[in-house]
Amino acid sequence: MEGINVAVNKTIRRIGVLTGGGDCPGLNAVIRAVVKTAIREYRLTVVGFENGFGGLIQNRARDLTEKDVVGILPRGGTILGTTNRDNPFHYPMIINGQKVFKDVSDRVVENINIHNIDAMIIIGGDGSLSIGKELFEEKGLPVVGVPKTIDNDLSATDQTFGFDTALNTATEAIDKLHTTAESHHRIIVLEVMGRYAGWIALEAGLAGGADVILIPEIPFSMENVIKKITDRQEQGKKFSIVVVAEGAKPVGGEMVVQRRVEDSFDPVRLGGIGNVVSYQIEEETGMESRTTVLGHLQRGGTPTAFDRILATRYGTGAVNLVMAGKFGEMVCLRTPNIESVPLADAVGEQRLVPVDGDLIRAAKQIGISFGD
Amino acid sequence: MEGINVAVNKTIRRIGVLTGGGDCPGLNAVIRAVVKTAIREYRLTVVGFENGFGGLIQNRARDLTEKDVVGILPRGGTILGTTNRDNPFHYPMIINGQKVFKDVSDRVVENINIHNIDAMIIIGGDGSLSIGKELFEEKGLPVVGVPKTIDNDLSATDQTFGFDTALNTATEAIDKLHTTAESHHRIIVLEVMGRYAGWIALEAGLAGGADVILIPEIPFSMENVIKKITDRQEQGKKFSIVVVAEGAKPVGGEMVVQRRVEDSFDPVRLGGIGNVVSYQIEEETGMESRTTVLGHLQRGGTPTAFDRILATRYGTGAVNLVMAGKFGEMVCLRTPNIESVPLADAVGEQRLVPVDGDLIRAAKQIGISFGD
Amino acid sequence: MEGINVAVNKTIRRIGVLTGGGDCPGLNAVIRAVVKTAIREYRLTVVGFENGFGGLIQNRARDLTEKDVVGILPRGGTILGTTNRDNPFHYPMIINGQKVFKDVSDRVVENINIHNIDAMIIIGGDGSLSIGKELFEEKGLPVVGVPKTIDNDLSATDQTFGFDTALNTATEAIDKLHTTAESHHRIIVLEVMGRYAGWIALEAGLAGGADVILIPEIPFSMENVIKKITDRQEQGKKFSIVVVAEGAKPVGGEMVVQRRVEDSFDPVRLGGIGNVVSYQIEEETGMESRTTVLGHLQRGGTPTAFDRILATRYGTGAVNLVMAGKFGEMVCLRTPNIESVPLADAVGEQRLVPVDGDLIRAAKQIGISFGD
Amino acid sequence: MEGINVAVNKTIRRIGVLTGGGDCPGLNAVIRAVVKTAIREYRLTVVGFENGFGGLIQNRARDLTEKDVVGILPRGGTILGTTNRDNPFHYPMIINGQKVFKDVSDRVVENINIHNIDAMIIIGGDGSLSIGKELFEEKGLPVVGVPKTIDNDLSATDQTFGFDTALNTATEAIDKLHTTAESHHRIIVLEVMGRYAGWIALEAGLAGGADVILIPEIPFSMENVIKKITDRQEQGKKFSIVVVAEGAKPVGGEMVVQRRVEDSFDPVRLGGIGNVVSYQIEEETGMESRTTVLGHLQRGGTPTAFDRILATRYGTGAVNLVMAGKFGEMVCLRTPNIESVPLADAVGEQRLVPVDGDLIRAAKQIGISFGD
Repeated sequence: MEGINVAVNKTIRRIGVLTGGGDCPGLNAVIRAVVKTAIREYRLTVVGFENGFGGLIQNRARDLTEKDVVGILPRGGTILGTTNRDNPFHYPMIINGQKVFKDVSDRVVENINIHNIDAMIIIGGDGSLSIGKELFEEKGLPVVGVPKTIDNDLSATDQTFGFDTALNTATEAIDKLHTTAESHHRIIVLEVMGRYAGWIALEAGLAGGADVILIPEIPFSMENVIKKITDRQEQGKKFSIVVVAEGAKPVGGEMVVQRRVEDSFDPVRLGGIGNVVSYQIEEETGMESRTTVLGHLQRGGTPTAFDRILATRYGTGAVNLVMAGKFGEMVCLRTPNIESVPLADAVGEQRLVPVDGDLIRAAKQIGISFGD
Repeated sequence: MEGINVAVNKTIRRIGVLTGGGDCPGLNAVIRAVVKTAIREYRLTVVGFENGFGGLIQNRARDLTEKDVVGILPRGGTILGTTNRDNPFHYPMIINGQKVFKDVSDRVVENINIHNIDAMIIIGGDGSLSIGKELFEEKGLPVVGVPKTIDNDLSATDQTFGFDTALNTATEAIDKLHTTAESHHRIIVLEVMGRYAGWIALEAGLAGGADVILIPEIPFSMENVIKKITDRQEQGKKFSIVVVAEGAKPVGGEMVVQRRVEDSFDPVRLGGIGNVVSYQIEEETGMESRTTVLGHLQRGGTPTAFDRILATRYGTGAVNLVMAGKFGEMVCLRTPNIESVPLADAVGEQRLVPVDGDLIRAAKQIGISFGD
Repeated sequence: MEGINVAVNKTIRRIGVLTGGGDCPGLNAVIRAVVKTAIREYRLTVVGFENGFGGLIQNRARDLTEKDVVGILPRGGTILGTTNRDNPFHYPMIINGQKVFKDVSDRVVENINIHNIDAMIIIGGDGSLSIGKELFEEKGLPVVGVPKTIDNDLSATDQTFGFDTALNTATEAIDKLHTTAESHHRIIVLEVMGRYAGWIALEAGLAGGADVILIPEIPFSMENVIKKITDRQEQGKKFSIVVVAEGAKPVGGEMVVQRRVEDSFDPVRLGGIGNVVSYQIEEETGMESRTTVLGHLQRGGTPTAFDRILATRYGTGAVNLVMAGKFGEMVCLRTPNIESVPLADAVGEQRLVPVDGDLIRAAKQIGISFGD
Repeated sequence: MEGINVAVNKTIRRIGVLTGGGDCPGLNAVIRAVVKTAIREYRLTVVGFENGFGGLIQNRARDLTEKDVVGILPRGGTILGTTNRDNPFHYPMIINGQKVFKDVSDRVVENINIHNIDAMIIIGGDGSLSIGKELFEEKGLPVVGVPKTIDNDLSATDQTFGFDTALNTATEAIDKLHTTAESHHRIIVLEVMGRYAGWIALEAGLAGGADVILIPEIPFSMENVIKKITDRQEQGKKFSIVVVAEGAKPVGGEMVVQRRVEDSFDPVRLGGIGNVVSYQIEEETGMESRTTVLGHLQRGGTPTAFDRILATRYGTGAVNLVMAGKFGEMVCLRTPNIESVPLADAVGEQRLVPVDGDLIRAAKQIGISFGD
């Protein structure tokens, strides 16, 4: 209830920070808050490692002062660089011309000692936080985590920063496609991110006024999708907006899709699920259908106010965790407070869209089809 | 916990809806969800009253079909019109050339009967919901409420729709002013809405990277504001961003301000508190200071994704409340669910910024001054 | 020089209007200006035909009053609907089970007479304006044209409306992709519209800070593209932004591309040219490359101020042309004035990017590569 | 026709650059293009002077490399700082406790020699360019100018950068205010920049769908403004949008206004002309009227695509001018080319809105009132 209880730990003098995993709006806001809180509130010094765990392994680091974080609050990306690769417990190397994976976690420990780092703040998604957990549990490193994912699928926090920005980017895209769909009497299929969880598709679909939303949590049948579109046509609504999460799947997996597109097309050739769905709609309704794949647009841009604030509070909260000696934990949002949770409880637990939840029910009540 | 429990009430056939109080992004999204849910889920008919309670009193109403709500989801404003006036219990009339206030609530009852309305959904702020409560309690009208305010200061719900949009508008303004402040080495004062609660100022200030935030909940002293600005100057930061809620007040009320501007200026003449603060900064630091007053810009524009979703869920939830026979209640957000609360418990309870809360603490830890 | 000279033609009482071709931001602004100018300035009545020439052929029309155009100025799309099909001189019909093309232009004449239309305003791209020209020349219809294309490739006017909006949409996309490219050390390829003319790619590339721009007017070699990217890498710039017009082609047509992707990929399978370029960059540099295809996003959204103003002036100018009896002409922009030009001179003349022009030279001077 | 003819001047090795006058979106884009063109195309070195002419006088300068201009293209403001003060021919000093103005232009010459600068690029408005002209004519400095003003009121160029961004900011503001005006049946008055020229007010008013536009070039009468508003009311349009340039004046100067507000208000007290107009509308129509003053918001924000491109071309063109030895000239836009014009012909010539021009005529034809 009371947020993170700070009992200042006198032995902390110098902390490290890195950003790992996919790009996400708000990373810079976290870094800024870490640096400002560390310096202003606790008189610490801060070291930034470059390009995720790669920097920890290869000892690419630089001191971060307040000057380094001036003006970065509204900027997407991360001044530290990031990457999805470079797991220190499973690090790719070329030995005798062959690619092998080695445990180089001792190098991490070594580099942290070289820099006299008393605590390490790891900003990342499930993958980076799992590595953080392992460094804490196996190597005894004083690690604190900050959860990050535009997919909003971490179970241990009410929301992750980056999601609200991605959601607004996707919603704006629907707004733009809407007028074209209406003017042209077309079907527009928008494929958004979400490999396992359909949060972006569901919420952007709700916010943008989609007619059909397809998410990984609810296997769909093309028959139902087609029916929704033709029902609308019969009511005089000559266009439809279909929002598809990249991980959405038809009932029974990919098979139905493969059968339908047999001779001349296959899913690989057509690209992602958005193109497959679009192709089948054209085939079966005779209406024109167009696909837009947002892709990395969803990871960029200036963060929304919500994401900047959440990221700032996370950054401040992470330094407070460090000073309270709560290692092996990560900050999380329990609305309206910032609290903490053990990394061991947080990683590996995906937060999926509850199929019988409030949101899905509301969406169905206003007539949105999920193809089920 | 489980959202609104719907036990369909068979006697409901026709519902009314109105929007009251100040304009707020998301009103149209609520109306759309009410109409869609009523028609698609429950086969009801819907009557919209125009211009808040004025329409209920003067019987200006029209049927709302799905066609009426096509395309309104992304639009600011309200297709029903709204007004802050026209309280049926205290209605202004000119009698014998004199303005008097009358109780015309019986007209409201009459008009609701004329239209065969089985339940009335009132979308409004504290004022409109208080009238709704009175109509329910005094006149026995089957009223259900939907809370609305860009100020986010209603205690009975985690958040009101409209706030997120206003917050992003204010944040974007700070972003724009920031570059100018930096290039010109100026002080920029931004006055935002918030007569009693400082949510917009606090959160926009955090999101926009303000140096000073003045809110009604924390009386400020100009000495502290000036000190923050001159401290920054001494550190080589030649500009500062000051965000002021319109209701912010110096310690001891207005007095300090009046004394300082004595001879040639007074607060009325200078406009709002933003201008007063700006004037005094110039006087005491010799730096140039400029003021922007956002005003009604904060009430307009296309709603953010968050506000559209919350508004949609509120609209759907309100119809569900009606069908469950839960009159005298209003929908509210208990993250992540939509629930309900008696109007009697909800109105008249302002949710102020907790002075010792997480948000203020985080803001102070990164060096923001509140002038206290 | 003096804009359109209006010598009011007393016999005009009723005008028709249609929108043809692809969707384009600003169509509604033209319609609004046509209706307002016709009614307010000249006391005419206005008939809108639905879905391009389809409405003229099938007699789907409705009167347009000032009320119909309220609030449409900022909206994308067209309230009249549009389509790329339905050429009255080459109209697809099913006769005896076979698809044949017929000349049904007499139906157009008939429907125009049925509605007592004294002049017809056709808002469209090169295709629709060519039909307009033919209706004027072959059938003697009093036609006036308004040029429209997001591609900005009409020779007879300094600029077409819709282009500025599409350009800003593409530029915003580059802004968002930029931060991700930088943070991840990636190549980002953005495919934009432009089948024959590279205006969107060139100007968005300039505005967004692209490193490589590929346009139809300048055949590119992958060697040069790769060289630019690896040169940047050697200078420590670990990311690059490549903007590709959909119609860009390698030197010698598609061949180079086909050879390189031989066994396992071919352009069809990979989708558009953006994916082909991206694939080859990955293959030859070993760097990660990601593609975003903006697609119809470029046709939607609220028009920019420039497009709204140009569209409004075109709409007003078209009615002035009608009243001046200048049939067979279209409005055009000769900065800063609205003038007119015979359709016969305007259609079929594409305005391509001048390869030795100012813009390309400036782009090269700041180091942008065109792959030539 | 052919743009700037470059005949490379072998003696140029090092150039200086400064930004003077009010902030303007696109300044950074010019600086970036100057640096990139100088270094990549001509192998020059570049020195940036800080805070306008102040830096030239006080010798505050730093070398600018390509690294310094990374990422600044989309950013508002200027990395060099700017100021409206510090005219070297009329420089304020405190001597014997008294403020006096001195000619310190020799210091400028001295500092330029100290830095071995072969040519100086001055980016500024009419004021800064006049100083540039004087330095060229009186002191023989090799000066080249780049015109800048959000007001778009320089006569020697088709358009200045910054204007398109300010215009879109003002248009977006009208869009937001529109929905509120409509929902509340209110008058909304928006005061925009434009002390002498009404370009922003005129074009934003056209783009935003204003009902009344008041600009300095057309003295207005309140009677006409009121009539327009009440005419609209009688037609059932219960709201109106009034856009006022800060420099707009009633017929006969301020007098009419002063008379009307006699006892209790005067223009100074009410703030700018926007508040005065708003107050009088309320007084005479009995309708609620609200004012928003955009202020410095119009000088900030990320530049539009148009402004970024124009600024980039200006920056490149200015270096080309230097290399061609065309000192005492400034770059200008003669659509679609960048050309040059002597500073002597360019400064002191304001480009006002032509009262009988195309734009005003189009605005009047769709029913906009200018109060005349």
